[in-house]
Amino acid sequence: MIADKQINSFVHGGNVHAWARESAGELANILDYSANINPLGLADSVRKAIIQSVDQVVHYPDVEAALLKAAISSHYHVDVARITAGNGAVELLYVLTHTLRPKRVLIPAPAFSEYERAARAAGAAIEYAYLVPADGFTINVEELGSRLNGIDMVFIGNPNNPTGMLMTVSQIECLLRAARQTGTIVVVDESFMDFIIGDQDYTCRPLLKQYDNLVIIHSLTKFYAIPGLRLGFALTHPGLAPKLHAAKDPWNVNLLAQTSGVAALADTEYQAKSRETVKVEKNRFYTSLKALPGLKPFVPAVNYILIDISPSGWTAPQLRQVLAAQSILIRDCSNYPGLSSSYVRVAVKLNEQNKILLQWLEQVLR
Amino acid sequence: MIADKQINSFVHGGNVHAWARESAGELANILDYSANINPLGLADSVRKAIIQSVDQVVHYPDVEAALLKAAISSHYHVDVARITAGNGAVELLYVLTHTLRPKRVLIPAPAFSEYERAARAAGAAIEYAYLVPADGFTINVEELGSRLNGIDMVFIGNPNNPTGMLMTVSQIECLLRAARQTGTIVVVDESFMDFIIGDQDYTCRPLLKQYDNLVIIHSLTKFYAIPGLRLGFALTHPGLAPKLHAAKDPWNVNLLAQTSGVAALADTEYQAKSRETVKVEKNRFYTSLKALPGLKPFVPAVNYILIDISPSGWTAPQLRQVLAAQSILIRDCSNYPGLSSSYVRVAVKLNEQNKILLQWLEQVLR
Repeated sequence: MIADKQINSFVHGGNVHAWARESAGELANILDYSANINPLGLADSVRKAIIQSVDQVVHYPDVEAALLKAAISSHYHVDVARITAGNGAVELLYVLTHTLRPKRVLIPAPAFSEYERAARAAGAAIEYAYLVPADGFTINVEELGSRLNGIDMVFIGNPNNPTGMLMTVSQIECLLRAARQTGTIVVVDESFMDFIIGDQDYTCRPLLKQYDNLVIIHSLTKFYAIPGLRLGFALTHPGLAPKLHAAKDPWNVNLLAQTSGVAALADTEYQAKSRETVKVEKNRFYTSLKALPGLKPFVPAVNYILIDISPSGWTAPQLRQVLAAQSILIRDCSNYPGLSSSYVRVAVKLNEQNKILLQWLEQVLR
Repeated sequence: MIADKQINSFVHGGNVHAWARESAGELANILDYSANINPLGLADSVRKAIIQSVDQVVHYPDVEAALLKAAISSHYHVDVARITAGNGAVELLYVLTHTLRPKRVLIPAPAFSEYERAARAAGAAIEYAYLVPADGFTINVEELGSRLNGIDMVFIGNPNNPTGMLMTVSQIECLLRAARQTGTIVVVDESFMDFIIGDQDYTCRPLLKQYDNLVIIHSLTKFYAIPGLRLGFALTHPGLAPKLHAAKDPWNVNLLAQTSGVAALADTEYQAKSRETVKVEKNRFYTSLKALPGLKPFVPAVNYILIDISPSGWTAPQLRQVLAAQSILIRDCSNYPGLSSSYVRVAVKLNEQNKILLQWLEQVLR
């Protein structure tokens, strides 16, 4: 059972290419609820930046990522010396584990499976802190903090994926204090933080100066809808940043991703509209899902919703399959350690799209 | 002195962004002789593929890189199970060293500095096999083979960068045989092999089935002029490929790079024209450089030429600086272990561009 989980643990949502291969379908016809991408899609400013830069791909990307780092520094109010730019946030998980080579790693479960995969790649042994559905998968920081003895690294998604659980910065600070005692690195993944209106109660960025053991991982591909380009960054102690830089190839962030990042971070209109859209649609979608018989959705913090479908009598693989036949992809969560085969995750999209999924769900579950 | 070399070892050519920052110059006005990129520039087929795929960046890249690997397999006649796709060839050097963690690494010097940087990132100790200018920096495989005892990994650039030295496949097989005895992995970097007309006497691809200890690294960014996009691959024993895959993030090759690679590998017209152009221009450029007083160019195998400028009385940093003021970038090779400060490297570009550099060199060196 455990072995099975491990084998399948690293299948992800968003694999539209595998779907297209298997069903001979067209990417353009997919309604992809399995990847948590901003439903507004590519910003016009970013599309324009890419197209204007196509002929620059004959040059290497900037090894310093200077313009990108300046934009990140200014947008997130962090010192440039703390920033490592990544070929997606996930690359930086691997750069981090290959650099620090943690021996024992603690991960709340369920969580984004790349924490475990990156830790294993560097040879770490994994321990799970299982979260309980009845508590809404809340992370108990006191309990987690009490388990840090001998743990080299702990991963926290905030908000956590796939549960949608959001922790306050003071809760995480409690964990950081415990981790400082045990010499544990705390990796906080804030890849969905941009979707939150007013993140000051949640982001750990202001804690970077106080806690040398804090690493923040941040994706720019979800909020700016550019997963195909790969873009993310890590925020660390300034002493760790050069080590991360030395552990990766110098040209890791491609030129179009760097250009797109600069354009995206400047597009305050797109940012505001995205946050407002997700705020409205996640609540509307959650309410509609809750009203369907057989579904128990968890309250979303951002642009995805975890659903317990056990009352419906369906399993996640079954539901996934029947919807895939309609070119609608949802995330079957049964390969997450800590989740049974009765959980699925759906992204929050625009109302007209969500209505389509709701109609299919109603028809299927009836 | 050695410490100095190490500190500066990892400054590369092609850093047009640093030049643009320092001189407030425009990328479009640079004549970049410091990066060895196909002088034909971006193929129309590739530009078209990128532009047509821009709106697909809202999707994750294919984790299997299935279409790209199929194109590589068919173009280079290698089994798909041996291919690992990379975010540039250089990423795969790091994935390789992080995966295999060699303790002692042997590198002919001078060589591409990322071999050393990737090996150091994984904690390896570096030993150099110094090559001799009077021998044209020829690699003596018998001598190299005799030094493999206790060496976990040896790197060979074929053709070697920056020297331009090309080895035959039978020479490299001699090294592979010795390496098999000592349990040494031989990493052959064939990133410039595509520029050679009829590579069958030089490429190690046919040896993959015989030698489990052979790893071939191959860039697609130089020949197809897409360094800004990042694209390369490794060819290995089929048992090593899944380990490399596990050591990197699954989405490492961005969607536009995958699309570009497929388009590029299908563009046989561009390929033939590129090889023919480089063949003609490298010979013409070499002859003209040789005719200039004070320059001793080494015979080029592909699209770059190493030059000993010591007879001119100039140092490489001086010459680099005076040409940079004219928006012409050349590679100052003084940070290569194994080269003095009187070596520079220039790319081979089109005749009309090469003439401009030749005129400046003539004027400067007079």
